[in-house]
Amino acid sequence: MAGGAQARKRRSPRPKRSLTDAERAERAAAPSRLSAKYHPFYEGKIEVVSKVPIRSLDDLSIWYSPGVAAPCLRIVRRPELVYDLTNKWNTVAIVTDGSRILGLGNIGPKAGLPVMEGKSLLFKFLGGVDAHPLCLGTQDPDQIVQAVQWLAPSYGGINLEDIANPKCFVILERLRELLDIPIWHDDQQGTATIVTAAALNALKLVGKKPRYVSTALVGAGAANVAIARLLMAAGFKAKQMAVVDSKGILTRERAWEFELSHPDKYELCLATNAGQRQGGISEALRGADLVVAASRPGPGIITREMVGSMADQPIVFATANPIPEIWPWEAKEAGAAIVATGRSDFPNQVNNSLGFPGIFRGTLDVRAKTISDGMCLAAAAELGRIAEENGLDEEHIVPSMEDWRVFPREAVAVGLQAQREGLARRRRSRQELGERAEGIIRRARRQAGLLMARGIVRRPPH
Amino acid sequence: MAGGAQARKRRSPRPKRSLTDAERAERAAAPSRLSAKYHPFYEGKIEVVSKVPIRSLDDLSIWYSPGVAAPCLRIVRRPELVYDLTNKWNTVAIVTDGSRILGLGNIGPKAGLPVMEGKSLLFKFLGGVDAHPLCLGTQDPDQIVQAVQWLAPSYGGINLEDIANPKCFVILERLRELLDIPIWHDDQQGTATIVTAAALNALKLVGKKPRYVSTALVGAGAANVAIARLLMAAGFKAKQMAVVDSKGILTRERAWEFELSHPDKYELCLATNAGQRQGGISEALRGADLVVAASRPGPGIITREMVGSMADQPIVFATANPIPEIWPWEAKEAGAAIVATGRSDFPNQVNNSLGFPGIFRGTLDVRAKTISDGMCLAAAAELGRIAEENGLDEEHIVPSMEDWRVFPREAVAVGLQAQREGLARRRRSRQELGERAEGIIRRARRQAGLLMARGIVRRPPH
Repeated sequence: MAGGAQARKRRSPRPKRSLTDAERAERAAAPSRLSAKYHPFYEGKIEVVSKVPIRSLDDLSIWYSPGVAAPCLRIVRRPELVYDLTNKWNTVAIVTDGSRILGLGNIGPKAGLPVMEGKSLLFKFLGGVDAHPLCLGTQDPDQIVQAVQWLAPSYGGINLEDIANPKCFVILERLRELLDIPIWHDDQQGTATIVTAAALNALKLVGKKPRYVSTALVGAGAANVAIARLLMAAGFKAKQMAVVDSKGILTRERAWEFELSHPDKYELCLATNAGQRQGGISEALRGADLVVAASRPGPGIITREMVGSMADQPIVFATANPIPEIWPWEAKEAGAAIVATGRSDFPNQVNNSLGFPGIFRGTLDVRAKTISDGMCLAAAAELGRIAEENGLDEEHIVPSMEDWRVFPREAVAVGLQAQREGLARRRRSRQELGERAEGIIRRARRQAGLLMARGIVRRPPH
Repeated sequence: MAGGAQARKRRSPRPKRSLTDAERAERAAAPSRLSAKYHPFYEGKIEVVSKVPIRSLDDLSIWYSPGVAAPCLRIVRRPELVYDLTNKWNTVAIVTDGSRILGLGNIGPKAGLPVMEGKSLLFKFLGGVDAHPLCLGTQDPDQIVQAVQWLAPSYGGINLEDIANPKCFVILERLRELLDIPIWHDDQQGTATIVTAAALNALKLVGKKPRYVSTALVGAGAANVAIARLLMAAGFKAKQMAVVDSKGILTRERAWEFELSHPDKYELCLATNAGQRQGGISEALRGADLVVAASRPGPGIITREMVGSMADQPIVFATANPIPEIWPWEAKEAGAAIVATGRSDFPNQVNNSLGFPGIFRGTLDVRAKTISDGMCLAAAAELGRIAEENGLDEEHIVPSMEDWRVFPREAVAVGLQAQREGLARRRRSRQELGERAEGIIRRARRQAGLLMARGIVRRPPH
């Protein structure tokens, strides 16, 4: 791997610098190798368990017929009691149509199931949320909306996942109009939350203010369209943004392309790029303070020259997986002050898993009706604060997932913001929210640990 | 309660005979009282846990991105591998529209959720099956069919539950045509399996053969229509059956009423009641060897006089809940040789929970494409055998749920029958099936016990 040799030239100290090429290759291949071995061994990653006692079969007459009629009748009289008498309050559906699974493309619902099971694992382990993978046997946007609408009564929230662009926008928007439970598309709002947190902290480090900076967004898919919106909500000026899709920078002239098919991109054409610059990625990056690339696997999508043409102390977020649009060391060598990627083996991992577990925890704990941009920004701000408390530097602009208290803290921020915006069905104080989120997440981790320690979760094969 | 005094007159010895009226009332009220207290305390009855190890956050890169791509790509190439690499093989959707919840009627999907969560508990504790409650926000049969079709990719089977008659028939039939995973309606096939097992053993005790007996079916809802079909498959003669609905005995003359709306009842009009008897319940029971009532709560639907008019050594199954169509002691006093009800506080409980956990276990373990009547009969025969082994007498015609080995034994019978009928995707020997089912169910019970013992499942409130 050519990158390995070059990596050793990097100036900034890195723990991984001492790895040889062979070690680096092994490290990168390990998850896939173990995954191929472990998946057939475990035959699924999640299961259902009782959270109530079954001391004897007599107890089943409490939980099922005839005793169960009591909570049913209470819910008939007051439907909102379904949140108190069932697990709806903590249950989320992870809905996909398999049309854009990870970087694998449209591999369909069955092949997407391992990913959704993995997501369910993260939901529980990091956020204490019970999540059901629901891989739908349709890829039609209207039918996906219809399916989710029918499913809603059992769920406290919906997490849309890995649905292709542009239908994911329509689906999200229609469902948010139709349903009174929170609908989240992680590839939009999740990514945008983490990127916004990272961008705000990066700017602090280089001493710039959001409202004065010029931003280039490379790629105009689900992630960057949402990122653009959330950055604007965080104080970045649309006029100083240049968004590049596969045909070049979005301009007013190009708005007609999206008028019918893609309202969000249409808006971006009108609002961004006040100077009406034309051209491609190079033109968009020239003079920019920040570039956020969420386009396609690199390297070479962004070049050293392009980074060299950016403003003083440029910030480069190259988030494509598995290979970023530019290797971090290349960006650094070309003068980038701060670099972030989507990978765990480089500093500053922009990772959705930092967001959704805590955001859903807070949302569910106040029974919010939706997840607003304001709630995302509150989560981003809290992520930023945690990174600051841990010691902000060019390689630590967002916190690490290793610190599990990230999630209850996000939950508190999100829950409070939902109440401020009048979106919460239930009021809880800062302290209540914190204790509750921490209690639920601690319990989930203890539960997972116990099941492993006692062999209910088997040891992996050798 | 008038019944209390009369119960004490019964000739056959009963453990419950020594209860006073007050004790009996308290006993009957206990499940509801505890349910009302416990449901708000536990806020839901089931949750999702990991069945794979999470030793550190590094493991998440095996179960989620990037490692998870490995099983996805294998499933793209060979879709049936979804059964090996995910939990689809063991996951069932419990689907209801809330249109006929227990004896409560059309209380809607939200109010039905406590019941579906309870069912999920039974699925896991008795059968080791992971079941998601899915309470649909539509009551239109075509839409229910559509919803289940879209949900199918994630599930190894579908359990339809508490859906009103007659749409439940259409929904079951259409889904069985459309999907290649097993579809089960517990109120039809489940009840029919247990009743058939009970009927066959009851006949043995009184020394009669199915093909010679005359049967009265009181009620022509989901349960009795399915019971009629399964009894016929077990050797009972349609011509010697009289099925009574709210307007009287079904006759050829009445077939037109059901021609368009209800094909199953139409068929019953043509096939049963060769003598074309007319009239109501009294006429249907006259001379019958067996009556199976699945109509509406009694007592008084069936009278002592009616039982007195039956053949020698009559068998009375009065399965309505919460009060049977005739109190057991009344039936006995009127001469019934054997009585069964749906209640756990009388002998011979005809209880669906004896069926579906084991039947699904066996069905899933061979990845059967459907659950045929043959598989139901195999389960019924095995239930009958277990009761015989335990010692068949007039108060023990079906086994008790207390003996958890009922379920693996049913699973073996069902799994072998599916293979015989060419419905199984996977071959497993009798021994493999037994060990597997026993292992899975034992693990589920150990898991539940462990979570209780270690306080992850909290102790109930006082």
